[in-house]
Amino acid sequence: MKISADTSDVVGFTPYSIVEVPVSVSTADEYLTIHWDSGQSSDFHYLWLRDNCTCAECVTTLTREQMFEICDVPLDIKAESVSISAENRLVVQWDFESHQSSYHPGWLKTHCYSKEAREQRKIPPKIWDKQRISQELPVHAFANIMQQDDDLLVWLRDLRDYGVTLVTEVDTSGAALKAVAERIAFIRETNFGTLFEVKAKPNANSAAYTTLRLPLHTDLPTRELQPGLQFLHCLVNDASGGESILVDGFKIAEYMRVHHPDDFKALSTLSMSFYNKDKDSDYRFKGPPLVTDSSGAVVEVRLANFLRGPLDIPADQVMSLYSGYRRFMKLTRDAQFQYFHRLNAGDLLVFDNRRVLHARNAFDLRQGERHLQGCYVDRDELLSRIRVLERTSKLDA
Amino acid sequence: MKISADTSDVVGFTPYSIVEVPVSVSTADEYLTIHWDSGQSSDFHYLWLRDNCTCAECVTTLTREQMFEICDVPLDIKAESVSISAENRLVVQWDFESHQSSYHPGWLKTHCYSKEAREQRKIPPKIWDKQRISQELPVHAFANIMQQDDDLLVWLRDLRDYGVTLVTEVDTSGAALKAVAERIAFIRETNFGTLFEVKAKPNANSAAYTTLRLPLHTDLPTRELQPGLQFLHCLVNDASGGESILVDGFKIAEYMRVHHPDDFKALSTLSMSFYNKDKDSDYRFKGPPLVTDSSGAVVEVRLANFLRGPLDIPADQVMSLYSGYRRFMKLTRDAQFQYFHRLNAGDLLVFDNRRVLHARNAFDLRQGERHLQGCYVDRDELLSRIRVLERTSKLDA
Repeated sequence: MKISADTSDVVGFTPYSIVEVPVSVSTADEYLTIHWDSGQSSDFHYLWLRDNCTCAECVTTLTREQMFEICDVPLDIKAESVSISAENRLVVQWDFESHQSSYHPGWLKTHCYSKEAREQRKIPPKIWDKQRISQELPVHAFANIMQQDDDLLVWLRDLRDYGVTLVTEVDTSGAALKAVAERIAFIRETNFGTLFEVKAKPNANSAAYTTLRLPLHTDLPTRELQPGLQFLHCLVNDASGGESILVDGFKIAEYMRVHHPDDFKALSTLSMSFYNKDKDSDYRFKGPPLVTDSSGAVVEVRLANFLRGPLDIPADQVMSLYSGYRRFMKLTRDAQFQYFHRLNAGDLLVFDNRRVLHARNAFDLRQGERHLQGCYVDRDELLSRIRVLERTSKLDA
Repeated sequence: MKISADTSDVVGFTPYSIVEVPVSVSTADEYLTIHWDSGQSSDFHYLWLRDNCTCAECVTTLTREQMFEICDVPLDIKAESVSISAENRLVVQWDFESHQSSYHPGWLKTHCYSKEAREQRKIPPKIWDKQRISQELPVHAFANIMQQDDDLLVWLRDLRDYGVTLVTEVDTSGAALKAVAERIAFIRETNFGTLFEVKAKPNANSAAYTTLRLPLHTDLPTRELQPGLQFLHCLVNDASGGESILVDGFKIAEYMRVHHPDDFKALSTLSMSFYNKDKDSDYRFKGPPLVTDSSGAVVEVRLANFLRGPLDIPADQVMSLYSGYRRFMKLTRDAQFQYFHRLNAGDLLVFDNRRVLHARNAFDLRQGERHLQGCYVDRDELLSRIRVLERTSKLDA
């Protein structure tokens, strides 16, 4: 949605354009209905409207946070009168405490909760297999996303929608990874630190720090909140082998939902155990490998073969969960889902660790060194940054 | 459970005592049954046992992580023979690839997944109202938890079980808060930083940083993972007012479940919107105020009146959610649930921010200064630290 300066207003930092204006208001017992000049209409409950009053008495000017509490008015509060002002605002005079509220039409339209409006606001992920991502992999140049806010915004939307992007020509002197991550926000610290060095180490406490092949997995399923975005920046890659492999966990989940519904159901409802025991830590988490939202859509994948603990579920569910888990892991090995990329020095792979599983082939250091640097930034930060950039960007949504 | 040195063994850092020994093994189609000398028995599926083989071929010695993948054996793998060794180990000869596995009896008993065993492993929270916590509030001295690992363990278990503790005689020179938090692990960074200073600020971006009264709330419901433990360390409190108030959200939830089941259902199934908009950030999260696990138990509370956004749910659910929300907020004001504590210099209140709601009365700086310092540590770190301390502690579980 484009913002035209003469019709926009700002409510709590976000600009709202006026694309439709209210022509009339009708009232019912629990809600009122705004009729827009487009012919559409929006219902708003009285309680919802009273709750969203932005007057200086209800919202403290200093922090823009609400001081009013909705439990302090009657559950059946009603409008004594409603009108539309000369500036196209909805004005409500309440039947309690003589309070009056006024609402910006752009804000109201943006927050309409009709079935159609809620459906239109959804941003579905772009789910991919090998063929699609081979054609559509979003590639961004380091210099552009560091210097141009619109390039940054496009990159972040690609990350949100595809769950994977490649950033090229990234400075390999050592400080660039942190700088790129902080173009979004602060780095998520975990029990593996903030910035981590991926190379073979003599006293490895994770398979990542060996030369071994890693099967397709998400990082840190052992934590209640798996890290969101994963950054893998290649500083040196002169070793033989070690190709990176990516699969879209959402794609495999959707394949399972269609072709193996019982396995899909098991993986999305039964809890797997994830363990990571070290000398000074002992992380354990139990949860389903496929997380679905209230509409049934898969919103998260949690899987790492080498970070599992003994299943701890009722005995009559054990075979179902193993069946589902084996099915998923076999599908991750299917070439139709796998995207291969050999990281070269200067490449930075960024992907949604809660959606896209990653792996690498074993590598051989006799040919040369291999050194990646990594870090995490959470989904909260990604989405916040997109919203802030969209406040001022002229790009279409 | 006490560990006696002569019968213990270590599997992946955790010691397992042998309290029962297997006397015989019988086999069925999908599982085998161990009969213990206590008269009890445990069923273990073949697939589960094969998955948990710890031989050097299945688990890499370097990182103790599993290299074997369970999808590489048949779903109907079976034991060709089973036996109990002289050291009381279960030994299984598999009917696939001539593999042999051996299992420590203490480890097996600890991981039995019978209904009774799983029930016994649960650690229910100690849910409190004003009366109970007034008598039982766990109080720990700073010096003890800093110096003695057993005191640290008792403190952390109190935090896990009661969700609130008071640490006294904490050094107020400024470095102590970080030191206490790091007795557990690293500090959770959020969009408010790592260590935060709670005092009235001229350009407050949060109600916390004003002199205003705050209603009972959890911190950062605007984030997908609310911070786990909250630390509030009082450095100075010479202002008048500003008393801290705590309520156990689990207690109010259970009260609602019994007395207002429709409101409980609405709050545990319908999504509330939480917003925190600032100049450079725009955090939004939608989720139910009461989070329940698969058994229906409440495991998290998410609520802050002043950090809410407009409800964005189907119109026919709006009145139900408002009814539930208003009920909960009114109950937080009921004196039977509220524990009052005026923080004095040197007091450190630590509580589970995902369970215990906190508030403070308005304060008046004409009488003197008020300065708290705060930080967060996540539940993952709390539980990991408890497990590591329990590896070597002689305290009863």
